[in-house]
Amino acid sequence: MRTVAMQISARSTGVFAIAATPFRDDGALDLDSARRLTEFYLEKGVSGLTVLGMMGEANKLTAEESLAYLDCVLNVVGGGVPVVVGVSAPGLVALADLAHRAMARGTAGVMVAPTPNLRTDTQIESYFAMVCDTLGPDVPIVLQDFPLALGVQFSIECLARIFNAHSQIVVLKHEDWPGLVKLRTLREMGAQGRIPPLSILVGNGGLFLPQEMAAGADGAMTGYAYPEMLAEVVRGCAAGERDRVEDLFDAHLPLIRLETQPGLGLSVRKNVLFRRGAIASPFVRRPGPVLDAHGLAELDRTLARLARRLDELGHER
Amino acid sequence: MRTVAMQISARSTGVFAIAATPFRDDGALDLDSARRLTEFYLEKGVSGLTVLGMMGEANKLTAEESLAYLDCVLNVVGGGVPVVVGVSAPGLVALADLAHRAMARGTAGVMVAPTPNLRTDTQIESYFAMVCDTLGPDVPIVLQDFPLALGVQFSIECLARIFNAHSQIVVLKHEDWPGLVKLRTLREMGAQGRIPPLSILVGNGGLFLPQEMAAGADGAMTGYAYPEMLAEVVRGCAAGERDRVEDLFDAHLPLIRLETQPGLGLSVRKNVLFRRGAIASPFVRRPGPVLDAHGLAELDRTLARLARRLDELGHER
Amino acid sequence: MRTVAMQISARSTGVFAIAATPFRDDGALDLDSARRLTEFYLEKGVSGLTVLGMMGEANKLTAEESLAYLDCVLNVVGGGVPVVVGVSAPGLVALADLAHRAMARGTAGVMVAPTPNLRTDTQIESYFAMVCDTLGPDVPIVLQDFPLALGVQFSIECLARIFNAHSQIVVLKHEDWPGLVKLRTLREMGAQGRIPPLSILVGNGGLFLPQEMAAGADGAMTGYAYPEMLAEVVRGCAAGERDRVEDLFDAHLPLIRLETQPGLGLSVRKNVLFRRGAIASPFVRRPGPVLDAHGLAELDRTLARLARRLDELGHER
Amino acid sequence: MRTVAMQISARSTGVFAIAATPFRDDGALDLDSARRLTEFYLEKGVSGLTVLGMMGEANKLTAEESLAYLDCVLNVVGGGVPVVVGVSAPGLVALADLAHRAMARGTAGVMVAPTPNLRTDTQIESYFAMVCDTLGPDVPIVLQDFPLALGVQFSIECLARIFNAHSQIVVLKHEDWPGLVKLRTLREMGAQGRIPPLSILVGNGGLFLPQEMAAGADGAMTGYAYPEMLAEVVRGCAAGERDRVEDLFDAHLPLIRLETQPGLGLSVRKNVLFRRGAIASPFVRRPGPVLDAHGLAELDRTLARLARRLDELGHER
Repeated sequence: MRTVAMQISARSTGVFAIAATPFRDDGALDLDSARRLTEFYLEKGVSGLTVLGMMGEANKLTAEESLAYLDCVLNVVGGGVPVVVGVSAPGLVALADLAHRAMARGTAGVMVAPTPNLRTDTQIESYFAMVCDTLGPDVPIVLQDFPLALGVQFSIECLARIFNAHSQIVVLKHEDWPGLVKLRTLREMGAQGRIPPLSILVGNGGLFLPQEMAAGADGAMTGYAYPEMLAEVVRGCAAGERDRVEDLFDAHLPLIRLETQPGLGLSVRKNVLFRRGAIASPFVRRPGPVLDAHGLAELDRTLARLARRLDELGHER
Repeated sequence: MRTVAMQISARSTGVFAIAATPFRDDGALDLDSARRLTEFYLEKGVSGLTVLGMMGEANKLTAEESLAYLDCVLNVVGGGVPVVVGVSAPGLVALADLAHRAMARGTAGVMVAPTPNLRTDTQIESYFAMVCDTLGPDVPIVLQDFPLALGVQFSIECLARIFNAHSQIVVLKHEDWPGLVKLRTLREMGAQGRIPPLSILVGNGGLFLPQEMAAGADGAMTGYAYPEMLAEVVRGCAAGERDRVEDLFDAHLPLIRLETQPGLGLSVRKNVLFRRGAIASPFVRRPGPVLDAHGLAELDRTLARLARRLDELGHER
Repeated sequence: MRTVAMQISARSTGVFAIAATPFRDDGALDLDSARRLTEFYLEKGVSGLTVLGMMGEANKLTAEESLAYLDCVLNVVGGGVPVVVGVSAPGLVALADLAHRAMARGTAGVMVAPTPNLRTDTQIESYFAMVCDTLGPDVPIVLQDFPLALGVQFSIECLARIFNAHSQIVVLKHEDWPGLVKLRTLREMGAQGRIPPLSILVGNGGLFLPQEMAAGADGAMTGYAYPEMLAEVVRGCAAGERDRVEDLFDAHLPLIRLETQPGLGLSVRKNVLFRRGAIASPFVRRPGPVLDAHGLAELDRTLARLARRLDELGHER
Repeated sequence: MRTVAMQISARSTGVFAIAATPFRDDGALDLDSARRLTEFYLEKGVSGLTVLGMMGEANKLTAEESLAYLDCVLNVVGGGVPVVVGVSAPGLVALADLAHRAMARGTAGVMVAPTPNLRTDTQIESYFAMVCDTLGPDVPIVLQDFPLALGVQFSIECLARIFNAHSQIVVLKHEDWPGLVKLRTLREMGAQGRIPPLSILVGNGGLFLPQEMAAGADGAMTGYAYPEMLAEVVRGCAAGERDRVEDLFDAHLPLIRLETQPGLGLSVRKNVLFRRGAIASPFVRRPGPVLDAHGLAELDRTLARLARRLDELGHER
């Protein structure tokens, strides 16, 4: 049974894993792996889950599959942590349809990316006004700011106007690149009361996580295949121990770099999750590039180097 | 009962109306108007219908609405003319799901646009190979080539390779701009046996219809609100009477120009259909610009001037 | 000798021809034709000239050629009408260098388009702030708003902030599409004192000239090959005789449609200017598509139909 | 005196530094720093230099400044290593003008990026055919394949056709992302004789340098502020000692990540070069983002961590 406390809010912190969607080798949705993967995320210490995001291959699922997968995850989580569902869609009717079905099932909020055609501040602000109007005020929203993938750029002024206009937008999934100035400026505006309280969770594969935590981020919402590292870096930075955790982070950087490759990165991620036993197959639905034998060999080499480096640093793996 | 003869083929000709999707003033799908609009298209002499295209606001419908609307149209048409259904979607599973449901209901084929991220010839060719593989060989396909709206550019060489590789792609919806050289070159390649037989139906609101018919087009697949004019121009050009019908066409050009405005053109079109009694409301679902009072006044002025000019030319209206 | 009165200002009206840049058949700059073409524009009743614009193939000229061509035009004009020079460039130093050389020679102002990478309102406003700062306050500026060609979209709010911040931007070259709502809104904002006085000259090949004049435009800045028609439509609309001149305009619409084709339109335009005796060759420098034999035959047909229609309307040609 | 041996060729290897262009704090071109920076690159063991590239702020220089800077660099180099000059420009006439002036001064070749509007394979191939035709056969060319910055995507098939058609294109500056499959495939095609011999030098800030060397790259052409590291990694990989040099490379990865940020990365790079004493000011010409105080503090922290890690690894710094 969902409680209001389980909804996302401007106080959301920690690591929300962008959940992969597991398929079998024949391409069918694999709900057994979905259960195992959900348990994996929970064991690794995530504070929440985000399903049906871009890296969850949301747009390669049918409507039925999306709901079946969501139900499976919600069932495993059992209210233990908040679950956010990505609802981005070309049309508002379909967006709201999925959002309302998901909220009725007990999700903690929805994630919305702008449609790719938006250019001017006015167009972007109008779009989020329509989204909020269509969803109604009771649905908490994560706004996704990811120019590299979406082609839509939010100025700081535009974001500020959106946050001031719509109190239900409580989390910013921040993955502009470079984005440290934007993140720090939003924090200053918050301190000055120029924007309402807001949770800022960083994405972009975690590529700048220590820097972003130092600039005031509340955590991460990203799908890097070692969520326990993300969680430790977020905790460490929050506790003032950046030096300690940044060595750990830098040890992972060669792999993070492989995972943040556009398109191909998802195959990297699923292969790591597969090697870690979290899913039964690294299958990626078409269209989408997959690692060839050379790519897999490079990945294995990178994982071996990571293991060696973690040993040097005295970290368990 | 669908018969093979009702499927689209490389011999398809005439005017396929891109059907608008009518809504009530409150935004609900209006199936009464859908019936009336279908009868309107048939009365005006179209050779076929294409539903759930971009100008049919396909991506603003839920999956249930799409099928309800399709069933309504198919029911009115009763096998009288072929009905094509637009199935473009970000993911192949959803695309195939709609296509197979539609074909089972008796549609004559499906229309597929490339996903907006495609750039190189290889990417485009791979995409259509995946589409054909996912749909299976029994689904006739209309390939939509519309760079202005989709951002994807097909070279002639790329199109030729696609047509040679996939015999089920039997119609090209040609709306490149400028596109006369492409159209003529494809015709020459067909005459030389370098590409298989192909129906080329032009879109782009019909803006270059007489020129395109002279360059070898087989007809039009577009939603201009006077389909009877398109039908007469196609017939006239095919009969060698271009001079006669081009005066008629040019009389419509000021209105065509209004209807081909990106975004806003759909509101123009639905307002004309509304004024002609074909639909009960010109409502356009959000997001999408709509004509304001000034825009409606300009439209009425343009329609009055069209009526006067048709009188001068001795045409009924 | 340049006088202040010859500078462009918020009171600029009429038709500014976007001047073509003539080349010989071997591709060399043709200054003889440049003289003849300048005289042609003046004879046809233009109120000003704009050289080195996009349709003047500015970026295909060397720095030396640009200045030689500009000097030639200024010499023929002899201060009779204002001459604007396009100075858009990837870098501000080169932009200012050309602008200052041109102003020293007696041009009436400069035209600046945004660089193609600009997306957010803030980015666009920052860019024009840098442009004004680099040019200094004594250089009157035409701001070019042409999303289809440049990929940059100005919201009304963004334009208003730019005009309020920079009094030296005195002319808007308006070629957004669709753009009538933007034009009318800017006029209303001017009437309410929310933006300073501004000359709005429309571009886009004149495709919506009567509508734009009715919405409050002050004239046109475009290069359609019959500038005398543009001038008559602007005069007629300003005098409240839209009905009369709109028949004339609509007669030209089939040709305007050919000229506004992206890329290819320039070849159409130069071929018409060539047929009218204004330039010695329709040569277009590479890269750039040119009309083939079929395209030329279509153009000749369109010109013959235009002549016949002008006869019907009782217009000289 | 330039000799044929100093021209770039399909056998070019090692590290070509993409040279920064130094300015004084007041924005003026700083030729003293240009001399010092050139000596810095040579001391750090580069095999060549590339000036007037994107990261050399080429499009922010006047034509005079470009040549003054080039002359300064050529004078210091004195024929010791090959110097490539970036000549990309919107128009072919200006491109050829700079290329021919540069070759006359003794440069080793020119670098050409596609213009941003190119989409189809045919458009891209036509463009390079025009470039080669305009330059003449005696100018060796580096083709820049950098989709993230340029928006133009080369398929492998397209590149192969270009290399087969134009023997003067002897170097590929490879910075597609992800790009390992492309690189490896080109090497296989070369081994099979399907493309002529070709030097592949990787860019992209060196972000995947060890992987790219393992995939068959001949070296790097990029401007990372520690060229001695790039040189050692290239040498080490070529000598079969990847394990040894990859530790060194990974130590630099946190800084490389900062330098590869779009836009801002140039300010990072110039600040590192400034801290290393290679230039007198980190000034970046407008438009272009610069590091603020927080960004500089993060940079200093990153440099301190790099120094500590190099100590651990027993590397000099």
